[in-house]
Order: sequence, then structure tokens, then C-alpha cells
Amino acid sequence: MTQAPLFQRLALLGCGLIGSSIARAAKARGGIASEIVANARSPKSLARIAELGIADRVEADPAEAVRGADCVILCAPVGAYAALATAIAPHLAPGAILSDVGSTKQSVIRDVGPLVPAGVHFVPAHPLAGTEHSGPDAGFATLFEGRWCLLTPPPGTDPASVARIESLWRGMGSMVSVMEPAHHDRVLAIVSHLPHLIAFTICGTADDLADETRQQVLQFAASGFRDFTRIAASDPEMWRDVFLNNREALLEMLARFTEDAQAMAKAVRWGDAAYIEDKIERGRKIRRSLIEINQA
Amino acid sequence: MTQAPLFQRLALLGCGLIGSSIARAAKARGGIASEIVANARSPKSLARIAELGIADRVEADPAEAVRGADCVILCAPVGAYAALATAIAPHLAPGAILSDVGSTKQSVIRDVGPLVPAGVHFVPAHPLAGTEHSGPDAGFATLFEGRWCLLTPPPGTDPASVARIESLWRGMGSMVSVMEPAHHDRVLAIVSHLPHLIAFTICGTADDLADETRQQVLQFAASGFRDFTRIAASDPEMWRDVFLNNREALLEMLARFTEDAQAMAKAVRWGDAAYIEDKIERGRKIRRSLIEINQA
Repeated sequence: MTQAPLFQRLALLGCGLIGSSIARAAKARGGIASEIVANARSPKSLARIAELGIADRVEADPAEAVRGADCVILCAPVGAYAALATAIAPHLAPGAILSDVGSTKQSVIRDVGPLVPAGVHFVPAHPLAGTEHSGPDAGFATLFEGRWCLLTPPPGTDPASVARIESLWRGMGSMVSVMEPAHHDRVLAIVSHLPHLIAFTICGTADDLADETRQQVLQFAASGFRDFTRIAASDPEMWRDVFLNNREALLEMLARFTEDAQAMAKAVRWGDAAYIEDKIERGRKIRRSLIEINQA
Repeated sequence: MTQAPLFQRLALLGCGLIGSSIARAAKARGGIASEIVANARSPKSLARIAELGIADRVEADPAEAVRGADCVILCAPVGAYAALATAIAPHLAPGAILSDVGSTKQSVIRDVGPLVPAGVHFVPAHPLAGTEHSGPDAGFATLFEGRWCLLTPPPGTDPASVARIESLWRGMGSMVSVMEPAHHDRVLAIVSHLPHLIAFTICGTADDLADETRQQVLQFAASGFRDFTRIAASDPEMWRDVFLNNREALLEMLARFTEDAQAMAKAVRWGDAAYIEDKIERGRKIRRSLIEINQA
């Protein structure tokens, strides 16, 4: 006799890299959901999800998709959450858990929180996993294995619901940590959002160079720039929404970074070798710390 | 009967990642040099090179190392070139080729060019290859395969010597292109030097955050930051010298990048979604161009 699955019906609203990976992981692992219902905004994505067979059912209407689901996960760009939550709120089953996978957590609590009906449990989550690819074809069942998923439940959230979302992510192979939403947004601003903003920006800076140089930039892209372009290949709509919804933390981290870059520029201009070497050594130190805690 | 090797005696001054990879590649491929002489600044490196057996002979004195060599390659950080060239100049064999592997080319021509004796052919070169590791143990025989090596011979350089250095790099599996030194320095400033400066800087910015956040930065380093720390693990002395010796192009590219980052910050602050999306799309476009020309 097998154990009852964690959820009877899991509804995924949005089925790109992350949503389709949840569907695949839940199918592959078993014990997570008896039925998976997938919704996507575009008819093309809906058709592709049906074709891939990664969900038990495909629904064009989010309100239909969440009907009778005991777990609903928002997997669209965070800028679409308010409209999605408005559309589904009246149709959420009593006792259901509403979660998400967005990269910004204060904005999600601000946009979705007030729309959650009484008796529905709202447990915001953010899996720190992804690739530079997007769309239903980009997902894979092992995406979350060994990666962190951060939960940011607002004060007063039902602990049993938090525990079930934790079980969901652990069931897909993730490590789980609970974090205060504002702190999450600051940490993610420096580890993820600012690096992406920088990567997008430097690609534009290179693209603005005179024609001959731009051609050679592409031809001779050494490892540094090539790594940046890989990061910069990520989904534009998702990242646009992340930047706009983590504005304050992102601008603060960018301001700190810019001050530090200007200090480095000054050292380069004035030939301050000791300053430059010290900053480079700090980079190595951070790299070593990262390796030590098995994140590298 | 085998063909005569390209060089009778190849002297490598500096034997870190690049120098030791040349030694290994030349040994592994054959047809490149009958004898390889390696020199390094530190007794520890010298001992390690002897232990690894990647050179036929190890010489502590650069003047001794270049004696009778028909090809001498400077493989030390570019800031050490002037002193090295001064030490070896009187001992270079007539007709020998003097080359290098430095990441900045105008500075090399400025520092080394005037010291090259009449009858010695100076052919500056820069292999666009490397990893974030350094030292004699970091090298490997296939490092240059499929990578570009850029030659920046000053006007009037002996074409036969340029052709031999081209053969050397092609013999180790590289593609070779000739470029004007100032143009090289501008292109490398944006594809390599600025990305490294940014990576070193953002690691410092993260390291300056309050204790609790810094711990979580390390714990939850998502892909963006982790990629930056990999770049930032590179050799401090080498990169310090690169920054100081490509000052003007690097500062210009950093200024352009900073303007673009500030424009992005303004768009984030004022919620200009179209601007942000357009910049991200440009990043993707550059990535696609890179993939199309097989550099990704």
C-alpha cells in the first residue's frame, strides 16, 4: 500500500521553465499530487503543454484550473500575479494552499496577500533554481534537486500549510529555508537580481560600440563576457518584473556596487596597485567561502 | 623521417597557467620544439615545474633560460615584462623570436619594444584562453584548442617571424588573427577586462554587507552571483597588472557601462517597463549572435 500523495490536485498557473519543471518533478517523483492541472496564458504554451503530456489536464481559464485544487502555485512572472490572483480568488477551494515561485517576495505579499480569501492559506515560496532557457520545453524533472527553496510566510500563516509546502519542495529534492520577506529581497538583490541587471547592461554597452569593434567583441568573446551573455539570455518578461518588483533593494545594491566600481576606477586611474590587488583578493576569498559551503 | 620542429629551443619565462600549458601542449603535440626551457620567479614554482617534468630544463636565471633559444615567450604578469626584458635582452640569440602571452598589447609594445636588440624579432601575442585557476599545476595541454590567439606585431615586424609564431599557436590547436594593438586593447577591455573588474567588485560589495546578509549571500548564491565569483577567483597579480596596463580603454568601457547601468537604474526607479524589456532583449540578441558564430 502506498502512502497518500501530498496533494489531491495541484494547479500550476504558468507553465514555463519553473512551472513545467514542477509538473515534471511531481510526475517523476510520485507521492506529490494525484492530479496536475496546468494553465498558461498563451494558447501556444497550452497546446505545447498538452503535447508534452506533463500535466494531467490543461485549462485555458485560470479560474477553471484552480477549481477543486488543494494546492495552487503561481508560476507566472511576478508582474502578472495581481491579475491572476483576482481571477482565481473566488474559485479557490476552502482550505486550499496558495503558493508561488516568484523571485521577489515583498511584492508578492503586497499584490496577492489582500486577495486571498479567508480559509485559504497563502505560503509564498521561491526556488533558487533556473537556467537561462524559458518556456514549457525548458523545464526538467531534476531542476530543483539540491537547490534551496526559500519560504517567506507572512506572520500568522498556518504552520501546517507551511509544512506541506516544505514537504512539496523537499519531495522534489530541494533544501528548504524560511526567511523574512524583506530580508529575502535584499539577499536576492545582491546574489541574483543585480548580477542579472549587470549582465543585461554590459551586453547593451557592447552592442553600442562602433560596428567593427562590436563584430570583434562577438568574435573574440573571452570567458568573462561569454559568461555574462549566458546570464543575459534569461526570460525578459520575468526579469523586467523582478526588477520592477524589487526596486528598493535592487537600487540600493546597485548604488553600493557603483560606489565600489568607481573606487576601483579611481585606483586604476591613479595606479593604486595595492588597492586593486586587495579587492581582487577579496573576490577570491568569497569564492573560497562559497566552495567551502558547497555552493560552487 | 619526421619534419624538423618549428623551434630548436623554446624558452618560457613564467610557468603558471599559460606558460605551463604551452610547455604541456608543445610536448604533447610534437613538432613544436626540440627542447623546452622553463624559468619562473619563485623557487617553489621552479621546483614544482621540475617535479612535473613538463620542461626539459628548468633555469632560475632568465638570462640563462634564454641563452641559445630561437623562441622566447614571456608568460609572466605584464607588469613584470620590463624588468624581465631588461634582464634577458643582452642574452637573446641573434635571429631569435621574442613573443609573449600578455592580455594588454600596447603596454607590452611600450615596455618591451625599446629593449629588443637589433636582429631579434618581437611578435606580441595574446591567447584568449584561460581558467580561473593559476600556477604550474593549473595548466593543461588542450587549453588553447579551438581558442583564438591574437597577434599584434608592431609595424615593420619581420613577416617570417610572425608566420612562425602563427604556426606555433596553430600547432597547439588555436585559431590565429592579427590585430592592431590599440584595437586589441579596446576589444579586450569590453570582452574580458571589464567583466573581470565587475566580478571582483561585486564580490567586494557583497563582502561589505552586514554579517547576517553576507552569510546568506554565501548560502543562497544563485546562479548569477556564483558565476561572478568563479570569474573573480582568477589570479590577483595578473589581473592587477592587466587593469593598470590597459587603463585608458578599461576606464572608457567602465564609464560607458556605468552610464548604461545608471540609465537602467533610472528606468527601474520610474517603472519604465518598456526600457527595461528592450535592454534585456538586446542582451538576448547578443547571446544569439554569439551562439551563431560558435563562441558560446
